[in-house]
Order: sequence, then structure tokens, then C-alpha cells
Amino acid sequence: MLGAAILIGGTTGCAQSNNRNAANNDVQKSAAYSDSKPIIEAAATPSGQERLTFVLVHGSWADASYWNNTAAALRKAGHTVYVPEYAGHGKLYNPSVKHEAIVKSVTDYMTSKKLKNVVLVGHSFGGTVIQKVAEQVPDRIARLVFFDAFVPLDGQSVSDQFPPELQKVFGQLAETSGNGTIKLPFSSFREGFVNTASYALAQTIYKSAKPEPAAPLVQKLDLKKFYSLNIPKSYLFLTSDTVTPQGERYGFHPAQSSHLGQFRLTVGEGDHMTTAYAQPDYLARKLVEAGRK
Amino acid sequence: MLGAAILIGGTTGCAQSNNRNAANNDVQKSAAYSDSKPIIEAAATPSGQERLTFVLVHGSWADASYWNNTAAALRKAGHTVYVPEYAGHGKLYNPSVKHEAIVKSVTDYMTSKKLKNVVLVGHSFGGTVIQKVAEQVPDRIARLVFFDAFVPLDGQSVSDQFPPELQKVFGQLAETSGNGTIKLPFSSFREGFVNTASYALAQTIYKSAKPEPAAPLVQKLDLKKFYSLNIPKSYLFLTSDTVTPQGERYGFHPAQSSHLGQFRLTVGEGDHMTTAYAQPDYLARKLVEAGRK
Amino acid sequence: MLGAAILIGGTTGCAQSNNRNAANNDVQKSAAYSDSKPIIEAAATPSGQERLTFVLVHGSWADASYWNNTAAALRKAGHTVYVPEYAGHGKLYNPSVKHEAIVKSVTDYMTSKKLKNVVLVGHSFGGTVIQKVAEQVPDRIARLVFFDAFVPLDGQSVSDQFPPELQKVFGQLAETSGNGTIKLPFSSFREGFVNTASYALAQTIYKSAKPEPAAPLVQKLDLKKFYSLNIPKSYLFLTSDTVTPQGERYGFHPAQSSHLGQFRLTVGEGDHMTTAYAQPDYLARKLVEAGRK
Repeated sequence: MLGAAILIGGTTGCAQSNNRNAANNDVQKSAAYSDSKPIIEAAATPSGQERLTFVLVHGSWADASYWNNTAAALRKAGHTVYVPEYAGHGKLYNPSVKHEAIVKSVTDYMTSKKLKNVVLVGHSFGGTVIQKVAEQVPDRIARLVFFDAFVPLDGQSVSDQFPPELQKVFGQLAETSGNGTIKLPFSSFREGFVNTASYALAQTIYKSAKPEPAAPLVQKLDLKKFYSLNIPKSYLFLTSDTVTPQGERYGFHPAQSSHLGQFRLTVGEGDHMTTAYAQPDYLARKLVEAGRK
Repeated sequence: MLGAAILIGGTTGCAQSNNRNAANNDVQKSAAYSDSKPIIEAAATPSGQERLTFVLVHGSWADASYWNNTAAALRKAGHTVYVPEYAGHGKLYNPSVKHEAIVKSVTDYMTSKKLKNVVLVGHSFGGTVIQKVAEQVPDRIARLVFFDAFVPLDGQSVSDQFPPELQKVFGQLAETSGNGTIKLPFSSFREGFVNTASYALAQTIYKSAKPEPAAPLVQKLDLKKFYSLNIPKSYLFLTSDTVTPQGERYGFHPAQSSHLGQFRLTVGEGDHMTTAYAQPDYLARKLVEAGRK
Repeated sequence: MLGAAILIGGTTGCAQSNNRNAANNDVQKSAAYSDSKPIIEAAATPSGQERLTFVLVHGSWADASYWNNTAAALRKAGHTVYVPEYAGHGKLYNPSVKHEAIVKSVTDYMTSKKLKNVVLVGHSFGGTVIQKVAEQVPDRIARLVFFDAFVPLDGQSVSDQFPPELQKVFGQLAETSGNGTIKLPFSSFREGFVNTASYALAQTIYKSAKPEPAAPLVQKLDLKKFYSLNIPKSYLFLTSDTVTPQGERYGFHPAQSSHLGQFRLTVGEGDHMTTAYAQPDYLARKLVEAGRK
């Protein structure tokens, strides 16, 4: 049947017909994976795998090292991977960074390296970064992958994606910090960001998180151009992610994902942060499923 | 607790008590599967498996060959499988086919072969076909299985299950075709129908799809008798299916499934079309889980 | 990003910093599980596993034997497990039992055994039992685990968690029983409680269920103290559970779970009752994921 989600927003091309006579039987024989493998693994195994070029953009309470294991897994699988640090984070730590500076870090990086045909992945807050990067260097991007990411509508902030009572807590934490950053209590982080982790791993991930600059999270973004772009988009949703309240109104999927119009849905198991640390090969396969042509 | 979904609609019988004294311990020993197997596989493995008789009814942008691999997998597992082609599709291709002719194809097939105790499976648009077939030959049917299928309420069409803006696109595509059919752009098909497939497999499935006759999709159906029938029903939902927008209002589950009243829910991994091509043994197991007594 | 679900309700502590200098690389090397294991199994494997003390509280249409296999699996994995029977059920069967007597059974059990640091698990109706037990012996409890459980708000009953038309059927079944109990028809039980089971296992579980005393299900509960407690909470949701209609309004998750404010979400495969009988090792791992620090 005609899909609602798949027809909102522009369509981006038509299949080339150079293989139109392939017999149906051949397809079925050359199926992507055999049934003897565990289904969940098989579903992620590309056949005749394309070599992709990834640029990975991390989220809040993280820096580029968040991607260490996943980047290694992607490279092991034959892909090219770039992991730019961005303003205000990691070695560039700065509590008063603005959203524009973050975006500039990534666009400068992609431009200076002359990257082309990029699968641009944004995790969490990184969703808003790749929205704005796409506005500036659309020709360098083959596909945008939103990975449990925020997708504000034009004129909205990340904070606007939360229930009102949370936005308030949000503001209070930033205010009491004295320098406009937000430090999460461990219990909130453990239950919300790393709920599938062992306690030891939860603690280590928590300790690696610097207080997050709040300004980019409450900044209203002009996204008119983003919503006029015709770049293919995917949404990767891990089903135990509870950073936003799951469900219809605030869930990463379907609430944030639905802002994209037509998109490819990729579903996996995992939570907001644990999976990148503890199951990098699995996450890499899901990113390939989401990122491939 | 007393289930809401499970008590709306008639109840269909009572357990026979011929085994009432079986010790609880025995049950637990003879459990359907051991824990050493991957859970996802184990959950689908029937113990002391019933031999079932399946009739498989395909959906739109497909013909009977859609079921080739799955029918083979079901037969390999010991079941009897029938795959009728229906009017307007496959070798019977006809752009101006009506819904009644489609239903007649299936009822005539079941009647001429004197089929009894049938597990009647409808995929996608095929949901509406098995609704109407059930009205006409209820005594031949042991259970209806709706597999990511549309379940219009009395007086509704398939098209009515979509958001208004989609119904409009729907109509426009049919109109511009010149012969009342709908041909989907590749990008819509790839992202919406075969989102978990490799690009190569996505292309092959797309190329196998003829333009779909639109009339049966917008036809309002009299389903009063269907909703008075007392036939057991199951809904098989694959969690990456995005042909309808996922979620509360339009999702195959829970929106379409909830029209059934009391039904058995079977959940699996996969999307709208890839799974039948690439993971037929897995889909076969899910159909058995959904179709068995 | 700042999680909505994770900041409503009190936060319960801060990470101890005794390991603050652990290098990020070390974490990643000592990750909880390797990628060569099936993902679904790996996700449940704790590293450097804590030994936990479980108290398991069953639901309706069940007695303490419901936990037999799961308790054995937890013990095999090194945990201590207590499974109290409660008033009105199993060997204490009594059609006119009240909610208070049920709660007293569990608190007396925990107090007489001087249990401390308990992971208190409530299944289904058992959710309301652990709410009230937590009010009375909060100092004995390390964490509450709601497993596909009801979580009434202050002043509500279990019955209030259902759609109005179901509450009515509910009352009618109790009335026609003559002794204030509810016996479910087999078809309702089979489709709603044990939908993933083989027919043989479905029958055996059904036959083990005595008619359920209705009074505790419709009893309005004073839960003011529960909602002021600062005990960590988890919600374990099995995705094929259809005892409540799945979705936003009545689903165990997110509808019931959201009543908890801040909680840890643990997701698994399975239905309301089959999993405890047929996949006890898997369920045990999920209970550890939900119950650990």
C-alpha cells in the first residue's frame, strides 16, 4: 500500500533500470543473508557491501571519543570514517559555546578535507548539528542519518522537544551551575542514558561526561532551508532509549523522526549511550543499514 | 489481569479439559524450547507442531510470486500451502479490476479445492481480501492472520486508513497514470517498503512490481458481516514496517490491529516486503506462531 | 540531552568517585560483553555481576509456582531468591481476600526473614502489591521492579487502568461467578496472556489458573506515601504482552510505566505469562538487568 510517511516530502530519484531483467529467482537466491544466522545479525549484514564514507557527530555530555569503538568497527568493515570534534566540547571545551560555532567546526572540517558523498550521522543533540551542516554543504552529503537524535522543526530548539515541566528543570540546572552548563545527577544519567549498561560501565561513561554548555540546547534554530533540501534521510532508533519519554508525543521515534517527512527507519536494540561503548560492531552494522544507498 | 483487547469481541470457546491433571512441573520440563537457543529463534519454534493448511493472499505491488520463498519454507516445515493468484494481478493483470473480482478469485479457489480448516493469511491490502473471503466461506476458515495488513472498519476503504494528505497524493498518482493505476517512485518504495533490504535487493523487488490498480484501494467496503463473525484472528506485526506511519493513529499495530477486537498479537523483526524474500524461514515461523491453534 | 522521564521524580544519589581516573580506553576494553555473542543475549549479561536478593511477587490467575523456573534460573546465576505466597492465592486460596491481606503476607514475610537490600519484583497485579509493601518497609528495599505490572495512581484501582467497556465486562464476570471471582474464557486467556505459547503450553498454564478473587482488582488504593518515596524503580516490558491494549493510553509501557516518574526501562521479548514458563534463563537475565544497581 501507499505509505504515508514515505510520500510526505520530496522523492529523490528513480531506480536505474540497468538490471531490469534479473529473474526474480536470482534475487531470491542471492538474498542478503541466509536463515541459518541469527535473524538480528543477518538483518544487518549487507550483501555486496558498498564502501561508505561516514562523518560521525556526537551529542551532548560527550565528545568525539564517544565514537572510538564504533569508528573502529566501521573501519574494520571496510568503510571510511571521520570523527570531527566540535567547538565547546572535548579538547575544545568551552561553557559559553554557541550553536553556530559547533556547526562551523563540522562544515570547516568537511570542506577542508574536501569530503564528498558523505553519510553524515548525528547522535542526539548532533541531529541539530547535521541539520544545519546540511544547509551549508548539501552537495557533500549523500544521506543524513539521525541516530536517536533531535529533529527540531523550523524555529524550535532542542529544549522545545521536551515536556514543559522538563524544560523548566533544564533551565534551573543551567542557572544553578553558575556558568551556564548542565551537570546531570548520576541517577538520572544511569536510568536515562545508560539503562542497559552494567553499573561499572554506567559509572565510567558518566565520569567521562563534562558539564554540558546549555546555550546550544535552548537556542531556536532557523531551519527553513533544511526543510527544503532534497537529501535522503534515515532515522536509527534503539528501542531502549529513554532520554526522551517514549511514545507518541516525545519519543525519538515516532515523534522526532516524523519531523523528517520521508525517511528510512532502521530499528535496533540498545539505549542512548551504552551501545556505542559495548556493542560497537552491532551499532556499526545498524549505521550501515541506515546509511547505505 | 483481565485484558482489554482480549475481551472486546466474542470469545470463541473453552479449553478442553482432557489433560487437566498434567503436573505443572511437567509443563515446565516440556517447555517449547530450551534457553540455549537464541531467544528470537526459540520463541518461534512450535513444540509438537500442528500441521497447518495455509492460504496466502498477497498485497498490492505484488503477485503470488511474493510468497515463493515463504511457501517453500512452510512446506519444508511440514505444512500445506496454497497461493492463489487473484484477479487483476500477476498473470491476471488488469488495471481496471474491482475488489469483488479479487475476492471471488480466492473464494472460488478455496471452494473448488474444497479446502477446510484453513489458516487464511492476508498481507497488506490482502487484509481486506481475507475480510471479505471470511464473510463468504467462514466454515472453511480456522483462523485469519492479518500480516501488516489493512483492517478497514465497516464502510471504509484502504485509502481511508491513511492521513488525509496521503489520500490526496494517492488520488493524484492514480489520475496522472492515465489508466487508473499507481506506480510508486523508487525512493518511496525503497524507504517505505524495503527499508531493511540491501540496495540490490531493493531494486529487484521494486522492478518486480507492476503499477497497482487503484480502484480496489479506494473502494468502500461493506464489512458488517465480517464484524459479526466469530473466527479467531491474529495480527502479525514486523517492527520495521513503515508503509503506514508508525504510531497510535496510523500504525499497522496498534491502529489497524485494534479494529479486530480480540486478536492474538505476534511480533517480529522485518519490514513490509524484504522479509518474505530474504528471511523466509523466519517469516514462516512467525506465520506458524500466528496461525496455530 | 536532558531526559524528561529521567528527571521527573526525585533523583536518588550521585556516583561515587572512587574510580574517577579510569581511562576511557579501559572502559571500552572491559565492556560488558563481546560482539561475537548474539546481541540479545549479550545485552543481558552483567559483567562483574552483583549478587542480588530478589523477592518475587506474582500476579492474578497465578500463584507462587508461577516463578518456579525463573527462581531456579536466578539461583543458578548466583542470586538469592524468595517467593512468598500471598493471601487468597495458591495454598491460601480464598475468594473473598482483600488487598490489605495480600500486602500483609509479603511484608510479614520480608520482616520475619529480616530481608535487606531487596530487589522487589511485582508482576502484573503484583505491581500494586509492591507499591503498598514499599510504603510499609521502604528500608528493606534496594529497588522496585515492575514487570508488565499495573501502577495505579493515588486513589485508583487496577480496574481503573482499563478502558471503560472492559471495566464493565470485568464487573459482569465477577457478578455472574456467584462468589466474586473471575474465570477467564480460554480463548481470552490464550490470545491475551500466552499468545506466544504453543497450544499445549497455553492449555497447561490456563488449567493452572484458579478463578481470581475480584475485590483486590477493583479496590481503590491510597498511594500517597508510595509517590513520595525515593526508592529506585525499574520497568520491565515484554513487547508481545497484550494483557492491556498496547499503545499510548493503556499499554504497560508507556502508559503504566510513565506513572513511575523516573525509572529504568528494560525491554525484552515475550508475553504476559509464557516467558516465565518457557524462557526462564532469559527472563532471569532481564530481571537482573532491571534489578541491578
